[in-house]
Amino acid sequence: MENFEFLNPVKILFGKGKIAKINDEVPAGARVLVTYGGGSIKKNGVYDQVMANLPGRTVLEFGGIEANPVYETLMKAAEVVRGEKIDFILAVGGGSVLDGTKFIAAAARYEDGDPWDIYTKHTPVPALTVPFGTVLTLPATGSEMNPVAVITRASTKEKLPSAIAYAKFSVIDPEVTYSLPTRQVSNGIVDAFAHVLEQYLTYPVNAPLQDRIAESILLTLIEVAPAALENPPVYEARATLCWCATMALNGLIAQGVPQDWSTHMIGHEMTALSGLDHARTLAITYPGTMAACRKNKHAKLLQYAERIWNIREGSEEQRIDKAIAATRSFFEGVGVKSHFKDYDLPASLAGTIAKRLDDRGWNQLGERHDIGPKEVEEILSYSM
Amino acid sequence: MENFEFLNPVKILFGKGKIAKINDEVPAGARVLVTYGGGSIKKNGVYDQVMANLPGRTVLEFGGIEANPVYETLMKAAEVVRGEKIDFILAVGGGSVLDGTKFIAAAARYEDGDPWDIYTKHTPVPALTVPFGTVLTLPATGSEMNPVAVITRASTKEKLPSAIAYAKFSVIDPEVTYSLPTRQVSNGIVDAFAHVLEQYLTYPVNAPLQDRIAESILLTLIEVAPAALENPPVYEARATLCWCATMALNGLIAQGVPQDWSTHMIGHEMTALSGLDHARTLAITYPGTMAACRKNKHAKLLQYAERIWNIREGSEEQRIDKAIAATRSFFEGVGVKSHFKDYDLPASLAGTIAKRLDDRGWNQLGERHDIGPKEVEEILSYSM
Repeated sequence: MENFEFLNPVKILFGKGKIAKINDEVPAGARVLVTYGGGSIKKNGVYDQVMANLPGRTVLEFGGIEANPVYETLMKAAEVVRGEKIDFILAVGGGSVLDGTKFIAAAARYEDGDPWDIYTKHTPVPALTVPFGTVLTLPATGSEMNPVAVITRASTKEKLPSAIAYAKFSVIDPEVTYSLPTRQVSNGIVDAFAHVLEQYLTYPVNAPLQDRIAESILLTLIEVAPAALENPPVYEARATLCWCATMALNGLIAQGVPQDWSTHMIGHEMTALSGLDHARTLAITYPGTMAACRKNKHAKLLQYAERIWNIREGSEEQRIDKAIAATRSFFEGVGVKSHFKDYDLPASLAGTIAKRLDDRGWNQLGERHDIGPKEVEEILSYSM
Repeated sequence: MENFEFLNPVKILFGKGKIAKINDEVPAGARVLVTYGGGSIKKNGVYDQVMANLPGRTVLEFGGIEANPVYETLMKAAEVVRGEKIDFILAVGGGSVLDGTKFIAAAARYEDGDPWDIYTKHTPVPALTVPFGTVLTLPATGSEMNPVAVITRASTKEKLPSAIAYAKFSVIDPEVTYSLPTRQVSNGIVDAFAHVLEQYLTYPVNAPLQDRIAESILLTLIEVAPAALENPPVYEARATLCWCATMALNGLIAQGVPQDWSTHMIGHEMTALSGLDHARTLAITYPGTMAACRKNKHAKLLQYAERIWNIREGSEEQRIDKAIAATRSFFEGVGVKSHFKDYDLPASLAGTIAKRLDDRGWNQLGERHDIGPKEVEEILSYSM
C-alpha cells in the first residue's frame, strides 16, 4: 500500500425529504445565489422545495449553466456573486451545475488575472472560495463529495479538470432523480463505473481492502442497473445508484493505490470537440484502454475478470478479452453505445485527440505515465 | 436504505514516516499536552519521533493512561490542561489513550458539574472541546477516526461509551505497530471484526453497497490475519490491518443501515467487572449473540455464511450454525479464546451482567430493541 493523506469534509444529507435540511445548513441571514441548469428543476418540484426551505435568506438565482459548463457563462455568475455580495452559493443540479458552481466560488474570489489560469497555468485556487452547498439531482459524477470541477472553454473547445473546493454539504435525495430522462440515468451508471475503474484497474500494490471496496461498487452497479433504469422509478434502486456514484469518486477508494485517468482525459477532449455526452466518451474509450494497456494492467485485469465477471476459464489473455467484452456489453446493456460509428464520429477524431493531448504536454498519461499520442490512437482504434 | 447524515472531518495521515507530519498539523506555537499510556512509546522510539517533530511548541506530557482509561486519571489530566492553559492535545497510543484524550478534551472545557454526567445523564458535550490529534500505535478500535470515547469509572466499576469529538488529524504509521505484543495484535483483529459485525449482522434494508463494503473488511481481516500476526512483522500486512481497523469504525459502513451493539454493551460490563481485555469479551459474546438472535438476524446470517465463509451446503439453520462455529474458530485461530472457562470467569457473571444492564435501563438492546436481561443471559450461556 502506498502512503496517503485523506480528509473529506463534506456533510452528506441522504434520503427522501432531506432537501428540507438545507434550512439548517445554509447560514441564517445569508445572501444566497441558487445556481442551476436548463430549468428542469422548475418542472419537477425541486426548485420549489429549495426555495421553500430558505426562509430569512436573501435569495438570488442564476440559471442556464450548461451540460459541460462553460467558462464564459460561469464568469457572468461570478460577477453576480461579486456585485450582489453573495456569501453562500447553493448548486441545484447534476455534475455540471456542481462543477460550474465550484468554479464560480473560486472565480468570484480570484483577485489578479484570469481564473482560467487555475486550469492552464496551475495558479493557486483562492484560499477562501465562496462557501457553497449542493442539492444533487443526477447520480453520476461524485462532484457532490469531491473537490474537482471540470470546466469547458467554449471559445477554444477545451475541457479541463482541476481540484477547486469541497461543498459544505450535499443533499442526495433519490426521489429527485425520478424525473430524469433514461439517457441520463444510463450515463450516470457508466460514469460511476468508469470512475471506479480509473482507480482500480492499474497494478497491484498490496491494497486488498481498497480493491474489495472498489469491486463492491462495481458489483453493486451491475446488480442495481436494471432496477435503476426502471420506470416508474424504484426508490431503493435509485438510492443504491446514488450512493454508488458518490462513493465511486469521493476519494476513498483512491487512497494508497495508483490511479489511471487516461480514459477521462481522452474523453474530455472528445466531448470538447464533438459535444458527445461525457459517459458516452467513457463507454467508447474504456474497452480500448483495457485492450491497449493490457500489459500494464495484466494482474488487475485478471482479478477484475474473476471477481467482477466470474470469468475463470481460458488462458489469461482469453480471460482478459472476455472481461473487456463483458465491460462493453455492460455499457451497451444499460443503454450507452460504445463505438465511434454509433455517434457518427469520424475516425480522424482519434488523431485529433491524440495531437491535442500531446500539444498540452499530456503525453505521459496513465498509472505508468506511458500513454502518449500513439497509445491514445491505439486505444480509440479499438472502438471505431 | 434508511436516510442518513454523514460527516467525518478527521484528516488521516497514513504510512511509514508520517509521524513527521505532526509538525504541519499541530498549530505553531501551541501549548501541547502529549498524552500516553504505560510508557511503551518510550521504548519503541515513537515518543522520540513525536517529540522531535514538535519544534517551537511548549510541550508538556501526561503519561499513565490505563487500558480501559479511568475517569479518575483523566480528570487529573483535565486539570493539567486547565492549569497549564494547554491549547492542543496530542494523544499517542492505542484506543484507550485516544478515548481517554477525547474525555480530557471535553472535561477540561466542562463548565458546570461533573463531566461524567455526559455518560450517565447525557448532558451535552461542550461545543468547543480542546482540539486534539492522535498518533495511533494499535490498530483496533477505530477511535482515530470516530468521535466515541469509552471511559471506565474505577470507583463504581462502570465502563460506558459516548460520542465526544473527532480528532483534527490521526497519524497511522503501520511500522509503529511492530513492537506490539502478539496479544494486542490478536485483540485488534477481533475488535475490528466485531465492529463490522455490529453494523452488518442485523436485518436487510436493501443497502447492497454498505453490505459489500462491510463484507470487504471482514474478508480482508480474515485474509490478512496470519501475515499480520507474523514476527518479524510484515509491513504490507500491518498496513492492511490498520486500514481495516480504521474503516471498520469510522462511520461509513453504518450509514443507512440498522446497528446492533448489544455485544459491545455486554462486553463493556464484562470488562468493568472482570478486567478482561475488550476483544476477549467480544470473542466470548459474539457467538452467543449470533445464536440467541438467529431469528432477528436470520437473513443476514445466511448472507454472512455464504459470502464470508463460503457456506452453501445444508439447511438454513445448519448453515447458520456453521457460520457461528466459523466465527468462533476465527477468533480462536488468531489467538483470542472465546469461553468463560478460558479466563476462569464464573458462570454467575452472566447474571450479574444482565442485571447491571437492566439496572441502567439498557434492557432493550440490539437492532430490534428486544434484548433484555433474559436474552443477555442466554447469549452468554452459549460460551461457558
